[in-house]
Amino acid sequence: MTMKDVAEYSGVSISTISRVLNNHPDVREEVRAKVLKAIQDLHYVPNSSARDLVKTQSDTIGVVVRGVENPFLTSVLRSIEEAIREAGYTMVIHQIGTEEDEVAEGASLVRSKRLCGLILLGGRFDYTPEETVSIEVPFVCCTYTNSFGSLEKTAYSSVYIDDYAEAYKAVKLLIEKGHKKIAVLLGATDDHSISELRYKGYCDALRNAGIEVDKSLVEQTRGYSMKKAYNATERLLARRNDFTALFTVSDSMGIAAIKALHNAGVKVPDDCSVIAIDGIEVSKYTIPALTTLKQPRKPMGYETVRILVDVIKGKKNCQLRLKTELREGETLAPPKR
Amino acid sequence: MTMKDVAEYSGVSISTISRVLNNHPDVREEVRAKVLKAIQDLHYVPNSSARDLVKTQSDTIGVVVRGVENPFLTSVLRSIEEAIREAGYTMVIHQIGTEEDEVAEGASLVRSKRLCGLILLGGRFDYTPEETVSIEVPFVCCTYTNSFGSLEKTAYSSVYIDDYAEAYKAVKLLIEKGHKKIAVLLGATDDHSISELRYKGYCDALRNAGIEVDKSLVEQTRGYSMKKAYNATERLLARRNDFTALFTVSDSMGIAAIKALHNAGVKVPDDCSVIAIDGIEVSKYTIPALTTLKQPRKPMGYETVRILVDVIKGKKNCQLRLKTELREGETLAPPKR
Repeated sequence: MTMKDVAEYSGVSISTISRVLNNHPDVREEVRAKVLKAIQDLHYVPNSSARDLVKTQSDTIGVVVRGVENPFLTSVLRSIEEAIREAGYTMVIHQIGTEEDEVAEGASLVRSKRLCGLILLGGRFDYTPEETVSIEVPFVCCTYTNSFGSLEKTAYSSVYIDDYAEAYKAVKLLIEKGHKKIAVLLGATDDHSISELRYKGYCDALRNAGIEVDKSLVEQTRGYSMKKAYNATERLLARRNDFTALFTVSDSMGIAAIKALHNAGVKVPDDCSVIAIDGIEVSKYTIPALTTLKQPRKPMGYETVRILVDVIKGKKNCQLRLKTELREGETLAPPKR
Repeated sequence: MTMKDVAEYSGVSISTISRVLNNHPDVREEVRAKVLKAIQDLHYVPNSSARDLVKTQSDTIGVVVRGVENPFLTSVLRSIEEAIREAGYTMVIHQIGTEEDEVAEGASLVRSKRLCGLILLGGRFDYTPEETVSIEVPFVCCTYTNSFGSLEKTAYSSVYIDDYAEAYKAVKLLIEKGHKKIAVLLGATDDHSISELRYKGYCDALRNAGIEVDKSLVEQTRGYSMKKAYNATERLLARRNDFTALFTVSDSMGIAAIKALHNAGVKVPDDCSVIAIDGIEVSKYTIPALTTLKQPRKPMGYETVRILVDVIKGKKNCQLRLKTELREGETLAPPKR
């Protein structure tokens, strides 16, 4: 069943049928009714398959979101969805847990949905060519890049912030306030991910200010849930009660840490300053409001889609680094002790 | 199972299999049959185009999310995505703002993506048959139902909570604590949406306890962003400073309201108790933790997909009402004055 059959049946031209299907206003009601009746009578499915007759290529972009409980990624996802729609593509989404493999899931999505491109929103930093070859279509790493991996620059695209430099900046802000005993809350120091990179930034900011890195001020959450961040802060507090500042690698962790500090009787920022990276909406409204380096969520999503569409159309892969912006909250103060 | 296995099994080259899967015309019918048989025998999961050779029906479910900045809807979306995947369907998503029309957008999605079903996640409560006829496929309203509309029960499905009764329950909890001057923060009292229904529950809980509804304790946010909720609370406080409790129709609003109360020097819960409806993750970690009626997010998503798939397969439409559960936080106390 094609549009041509509908045209013959209804006695209306193909271009008019197309206008009806695309909801154009410039069709007389009577003609529209005639077309709709023909469509019903013939059980014609007016849709992408019809478009597929013209353009056989897929216009579907897949998005694998790794870390479904991460509100930062969710907010980037919104901008990705908008940008995909504006670019005239369809988006299919697949959300996975942080313990799942985004490359394998992405590759399977590419095959099962016949994608023309793939966006990995959140993922590992250590891909190998052997691994990503299974993806088969252009792909963009969104919010991270291949820092620990062995991919050629020509083999992938990415839109990310410089995790090392941004963490360095955050910790430097604490040092400039006068803090020396600065704790850090992160996923793991050796996970080949944002935590490892941001941990390096933390260490170098301290060392360059002449402060030695004290391992007992480093607490690993072993996961990115708020509950894990809360529990990790409790462990940190049980071990040490003399740090005057805390750097957390995400806003969610920062919010949970402030709660744990509060419940332990540690006042933020009087007894302990807190700084994070992300800049999600809700951390403006916590008490106190979280001071954070805001990632450019909207540009991040838009640039990801722009680059992917460019690569689909034949342009070269590229790695685009964006910058954060300080969003001042109420969690920074000079140390009392 | 890979294409290679199919190649070995069928004795046909990978490139030919690929041509079959991608519906290229230049494959002999005999070879095509051989490939399809191999795919069936091996239970190989071929991409959608291959599946389209076998079953011509669409297996794509569309989800229109209305209210992209609503973290409650985002969390239900996760469960919908999981359930769609588990049921073996593909999901396409379309996120729109609260001012956009989910029916028109959904109908256009159905046509352009050839959907077999549609989920409206967040939407208006007053659909008419004239309006929803454009959707053309089975649809489920998720998180709301047709309370103010004129649809036949047989024409749509929905999974929702009883907004009236749940609001009644929340306000009753405040009254039982001893509160009489209870303010309410909501979108609008006459918006034919959760706000109107929950406002009715608020009014009846007061009246049934012998408390008159005082219009100057009712504040309309005219939108669901945290910023609007924050500003509305400021307006409320400028007008009245004698209420001892506040009911907000969502957790996000509750968090923003607590911040505005705090910034105005009103202590929660000592000076003012707060209760909300939703039960999102982050409100466990606010200071104080928000007391809220938790919506069953996961069952909500799963039941939505289960019902939709049933209707797609020929079962009748149905409306399923779920219940909230009290999640005790730290924002309830008896009134001081």
